[in-house]
Amino acid sequence: MAEAGALRIAMVGHGFMGAAHSQAWRVAPHFFDLPLEVRRSVVVGRDAGRAAAAAEKFGWDSSATDWREVVTRDDVDLVDVVAPGDAHAEVAIAALEAGKHVLCEKPLGNTLAEAEAMNAAAERASSGGAKAMVGFSYRRVPAVAFARQLVADGAIGQVRQVRVAYLQDWLADANAPMTWRLDKKLAGSGALGDIGAHAIDLVQHVVGTRLVAVSGLMHTFVTERPLTGGRGLAASSNGGGAGDEVGKVTVDDAAMAMARTAEGALVSLEASRFATGRKNGLHLEVYGSDGAIVFDLEDMNVLQVYDARRGADRQGFTRILVTEPEHPWMAGWWPAGHIIGYEHTFTHQVVDLVGDIAAGRQPSPSFAEGLQVQRVLDALERSSGEGSAWMSI
Amino acid sequence: MAEAGALRIAMVGHGFMGAAHSQAWRVAPHFFDLPLEVRRSVVVGRDAGRAAAAAEKFGWDSSATDWREVVTRDDVDLVDVVAPGDAHAEVAIAALEAGKHVLCEKPLGNTLAEAEAMNAAAERASSGGAKAMVGFSYRRVPAVAFARQLVADGAIGQVRQVRVAYLQDWLADANAPMTWRLDKKLAGSGALGDIGAHAIDLVQHVVGTRLVAVSGLMHTFVTERPLTGGRGLAASSNGGGAGDEVGKVTVDDAAMAMARTAEGALVSLEASRFATGRKNGLHLEVYGSDGAIVFDLEDMNVLQVYDARRGADRQGFTRILVTEPEHPWMAGWWPAGHIIGYEHTFTHQVVDLVGDIAAGRQPSPSFAEGLQVQRVLDALERSSGEGSAWMSI
Amino acid sequence: MAEAGALRIAMVGHGFMGAAHSQAWRVAPHFFDLPLEVRRSVVVGRDAGRAAAAAEKFGWDSSATDWREVVTRDDVDLVDVVAPGDAHAEVAIAALEAGKHVLCEKPLGNTLAEAEAMNAAAERASSGGAKAMVGFSYRRVPAVAFARQLVADGAIGQVRQVRVAYLQDWLADANAPMTWRLDKKLAGSGALGDIGAHAIDLVQHVVGTRLVAVSGLMHTFVTERPLTGGRGLAASSNGGGAGDEVGKVTVDDAAMAMARTAEGALVSLEASRFATGRKNGLHLEVYGSDGAIVFDLEDMNVLQVYDARRGADRQGFTRILVTEPEHPWMAGWWPAGHIIGYEHTFTHQVVDLVGDIAAGRQPSPSFAEGLQVQRVLDALERSSGEGSAWMSI
Amino acid sequence: MAEAGALRIAMVGHGFMGAAHSQAWRVAPHFFDLPLEVRRSVVVGRDAGRAAAAAEKFGWDSSATDWREVVTRDDVDLVDVVAPGDAHAEVAIAALEAGKHVLCEKPLGNTLAEAEAMNAAAERASSGGAKAMVGFSYRRVPAVAFARQLVADGAIGQVRQVRVAYLQDWLADANAPMTWRLDKKLAGSGALGDIGAHAIDLVQHVVGTRLVAVSGLMHTFVTERPLTGGRGLAASSNGGGAGDEVGKVTVDDAAMAMARTAEGALVSLEASRFATGRKNGLHLEVYGSDGAIVFDLEDMNVLQVYDARRGADRQGFTRILVTEPEHPWMAGWWPAGHIIGYEHTFTHQVVDLVGDIAAGRQPSPSFAEGLQVQRVLDALERSSGEGSAWMSI
Repeated sequence: MAEAGALRIAMVGHGFMGAAHSQAWRVAPHFFDLPLEVRRSVVVGRDAGRAAAAAEKFGWDSSATDWREVVTRDDVDLVDVVAPGDAHAEVAIAALEAGKHVLCEKPLGNTLAEAEAMNAAAERASSGGAKAMVGFSYRRVPAVAFARQLVADGAIGQVRQVRVAYLQDWLADANAPMTWRLDKKLAGSGALGDIGAHAIDLVQHVVGTRLVAVSGLMHTFVTERPLTGGRGLAASSNGGGAGDEVGKVTVDDAAMAMARTAEGALVSLEASRFATGRKNGLHLEVYGSDGAIVFDLEDMNVLQVYDARRGADRQGFTRILVTEPEHPWMAGWWPAGHIIGYEHTFTHQVVDLVGDIAAGRQPSPSFAEGLQVQRVLDALERSSGEGSAWMSI
Repeated sequence: MAEAGALRIAMVGHGFMGAAHSQAWRVAPHFFDLPLEVRRSVVVGRDAGRAAAAAEKFGWDSSATDWREVVTRDDVDLVDVVAPGDAHAEVAIAALEAGKHVLCEKPLGNTLAEAEAMNAAAERASSGGAKAMVGFSYRRVPAVAFARQLVADGAIGQVRQVRVAYLQDWLADANAPMTWRLDKKLAGSGALGDIGAHAIDLVQHVVGTRLVAVSGLMHTFVTERPLTGGRGLAASSNGGGAGDEVGKVTVDDAAMAMARTAEGALVSLEASRFATGRKNGLHLEVYGSDGAIVFDLEDMNVLQVYDARRGADRQGFTRILVTEPEHPWMAGWWPAGHIIGYEHTFTHQVVDLVGDIAAGRQPSPSFAEGLQVQRVLDALERSSGEGSAWMSI
Repeated sequence: MAEAGALRIAMVGHGFMGAAHSQAWRVAPHFFDLPLEVRRSVVVGRDAGRAAAAAEKFGWDSSATDWREVVTRDDVDLVDVVAPGDAHAEVAIAALEAGKHVLCEKPLGNTLAEAEAMNAAAERASSGGAKAMVGFSYRRVPAVAFARQLVADGAIGQVRQVRVAYLQDWLADANAPMTWRLDKKLAGSGALGDIGAHAIDLVQHVVGTRLVAVSGLMHTFVTERPLTGGRGLAASSNGGGAGDEVGKVTVDDAAMAMARTAEGALVSLEASRFATGRKNGLHLEVYGSDGAIVFDLEDMNVLQVYDARRGADRQGFTRILVTEPEHPWMAGWWPAGHIIGYEHTFTHQVVDLVGDIAAGRQPSPSFAEGLQVQRVLDALERSSGEGSAWMSI
Repeated sequence: MAEAGALRIAMVGHGFMGAAHSQAWRVAPHFFDLPLEVRRSVVVGRDAGRAAAAAEKFGWDSSATDWREVVTRDDVDLVDVVAPGDAHAEVAIAALEAGKHVLCEKPLGNTLAEAEAMNAAAERASSGGAKAMVGFSYRRVPAVAFARQLVADGAIGQVRQVRVAYLQDWLADANAPMTWRLDKKLAGSGALGDIGAHAIDLVQHVVGTRLVAVSGLMHTFVTERPLTGGRGLAASSNGGGAGDEVGKVTVDDAAMAMARTAEGALVSLEASRFATGRKNGLHLEVYGSDGAIVFDLEDMNVLQVYDARRGADRQGFTRILVTEPEHPWMAGWWPAGHIIGYEHTFTHQVVDLVGDIAAGRQPSPSFAEGLQVQRVLDALERSSGEGSAWMSI
């Protein structure tokens, strides 16, 4: 079905993630050699006017309102799912069944059942050549990819303890208004699925392992919020007519957990939208028998590495500015010391995905990997409901 | 019994803590105005030669081997207990029963029962005027005391989340030899009681609260260690005759927990001796509704404070160098910007203790406060033994 | 001449700066509302094949080899000069004389005479409506623009001392090969004009002042370099035929200076390509009577601000993550805490330039401002030649 | 004359430096094995009451008012000169002529002539066995001593550029009152001699070189100050009777310089008491052909080291916590990670001085080294007076 050498994209959704994905599709060909020509063909949204405006603003050829029609069109090769979590399963499965490649934002689904169905669809579609990838974009932070390399190369020895926390503060104000992200029906969960999912994937990716057991706790600090106003917020399903003034928060504001990896390392995990002063603070510490690695997303061009094999008087955390051409993806950008930003991770994701599609390789993170993260989320939520009892994954 | 205006000290034990306490008793009068003259009278140790050498090295008037005799002597006013944890209860109780003031290193006892007995003894002795204090010296880091002030003054609003971790790495080498600190009979516990106790006290002190429930996990990474050699290490009770080559580690290498404060704040807690690259990394983060506080013991002259009430474009973590004369205890030392070190916390402890004794005030942390920390330690250990079930404290 | 609502760009040159400018022209309309439609019309380069490849890679409509022809074409509205410094004057003046708007990379010219001629051309063209801007792109780092605002608002009081250093290390290896940047004929000067110019503009822009006197020193550590090989390097005019093995370095490796502002503040200035470990370290410290500001380009999303009017115990450097929507340009990008990178400064430059052109405003930095920086460079160079004697500017 | 095995100290002066030296003499024997017994015999001050109070407070056996008498007494072995700079020459020379060892605070004298006379006296006394040392105590910061080792071992290759700045802010308030430190007659110079001397010694010591030429500038921002009040301040010689309200500041508030080392490295140097927010910020950067070193006194337990010989993707500044037993002097103190403070540098100074005296070795920094620093100060001051003309040293 595909035009030779071209990859025609349909993007379903056009919010904040739509802007990021659009920038990635737009920019990637100008800094990296892509084996396929990328075309931003169509943006899909429920509201025709807003979809058209998004297509104009983000630079897509056209817009549409019926995703079911679009994902089966002959002139679409890849469906990029950036809609809220409750739409992921339906759209992605339909696209895969139509033989399209799929890039789907994280977390894979709103529930474990959805994620399992999505993974099954991806496996079925795989035989026909369709590729499916889930958008854990932080894997494509050069410092994160480099950290994974270092761990795999044995630079820090056997990993024993991991500390990860994804801390934001946009809900710290108890009067911040209600939004779809605080409505379990739409968002699936709160801090856990939104940012905790990133944290879980980050640990598993950098360490090269899987979490196999978890004991967790989810908590909601502010259980009701005003329904009106506020930037970037929309009315939720929890508040009804015009007379309502507050909506019920039905998701977690913060989640925390203790976990174990397959090799027996201990992991502490936190996700919070109430950590005043932390804006996008995904902080990772990995302690091994021969060294350690520290990363923080707010300072994402830096990786700190400790090498315990050096002489005792020379040991310390080395602050590596991950902007050298020898670092992952960085040869495509600027000279050393010229930093990149948040959106570049999406560009790297596109670069790798297009390369995999052209080469017929399975992209990573696959839906199976996304499903595994979902299993951790599910186990943590069940644990929280049962007095933090340990759950196997 | 006391000589007018003098405070004659007997110190039981003379290891690393003995050096720190000696320095505090020695230095305090030269930088602070003490209401009582402090006399370093006698050091007590099991081995006469080593006790005499310690008295000489640390600058005490005399040495002795029989602590039971010393703690009842008329010419002793205060007993400073710096021996390993298994001796705390016995010595402190005897001293209190003899009407002496007691300063006892942390944790209060090796078991909850010991701590309860010690607290009861302190309460009984209190009516006779004897004062008892437990040595959570990090309360006397100026940045920590200042943090407590700020929280109490409402500078960060209502506290919602706390992250505390005490990370060291001196056991990360699996071949590091056995020591009494790894023997449950002598040390009570491992990372938990040794450094986790500090972390728990720090949270409670800075936030001005008590932990009321905990779900925890303790773990031992390396279960056997060579019995010989190594600096600062001594043979333990777990390895017998000359033929033995390894000793059993019977304590935790790392502990982690989720906890709640009386007001419902969430607390994550970790203590580890396996965090490669962290030497004395007691790291605290307190997130409130209106701000946040961050402290790290490796950079102990600094407190970071976030004020969410400032204009959105002016917010950030302010790195306060806690060396101004307006900061706790600092007027006694050097001009602003001239930092102090680890040992100064012990000096501040002595300054406050002597002031309290002279004024007839109860010093803080009292044995009751030490007992409360012990209850947290005990609950965490029980939780670890029961699948991380939540334990009330 | 202009098509209604469109701004058709001709870019002369297509090296590293060409990539950065292309990205800016490409991306700006998708994140900011531009009053004019921007068209990347034509790339000009000496070699037809390489120019065509650049047009393809950077996404321009066409390419050309004769800049003289291009700058007079009716279908070009703005000439973007990103060629090496020796071409700036000729191209920019011709474009201005043809009534085109001009964006010219810094430093304005290779000599003071060139810069003066360029400024005169800009003034003449101004009456016809042509706008001229020089590309001191670091003014458009949000943290830098915010710093300027703070100083102008009196946040740090009267400025007394400034320390600025632009430190790189790409020549620290004495065997790094010769390049046009080390040839005075092509580059004008070395570290001084390349990065020192940025440092000078940064000081003047943030403080809102002009340097009026300077005492300086220029130095070359490595006076000969191999002519062959190396990434991003080309043969210079100093080495001739095939038999030559080394080329003469005819520019400064490092420059340093003491200077005074119009208001009498002291300024220390350094620029070096030999500062091992510093990749793109443009570091600025501004000390005022009531506060201070610190910025580092390697950590460009952060501004540190000290407020000496706060209580003595609350003072410290506040680390502001300059990613809030309230910060300059940041409302156009991502949520708070999601950092931007090097290239975004060029996008902001384009946004402002297009806005100024549409509104008929003079853009800043104007050629007059670029000329003023050139006068400082010239004075510093003359001072260096006369025993660091003070030169008025 | 000396009692076998004892070193009896007379300390002339008892201000801030007297407190620091007293602490060093007091503490050193308890943490280090000294070959001689140190006795704090007598404190000398002009005012009998204040001298007696100082002896009591600082823990000396006695006090006296006539330094001329004391420095010739048989029961004094070493004279420790901590009085203001105008007394250094007279006291030190008299003590040396009496055959006493001398430890003299920096800068050596208030003028070059004084320093030369002092060095001559030290050389004469040397034949009789008297040792003379000048108190550049920052050489005894473990991180500084370790930095010197690293440079000497070639860890950063050939040194090419050095940046040093000693920044304080205690005069930033234009209403801070007059003090003897602002009176040229008493203090010799301002920021230059007080803190610039430390900066110069630090560069020369760490790099292992001498400055051979300097071009400098001295500046006074606030030329008159109120005569009354303020902590730690005393009336100066510049303001007369009761009616006077302001005193003239006759020293520099800030000094800056460009300099060259004997090997041709470039040095930038600054000293200021007007750098708002910097409390005791002695900041050093040393850039070599194979690496770099960064140190800051406000974070004095840390040394940052860059190793350019590592793989390009592994390079970065390594933050070494200089608290390992392998680091200079640290085996005498606490376990790794337990930091030391400002006063410890004086203790190390005493340890080394006593060791040298016992062994008959010349201590370092000798008076000759102190004289060399004075020559730099003198050359810089002359340069400032002659339009920043380069002066050879």
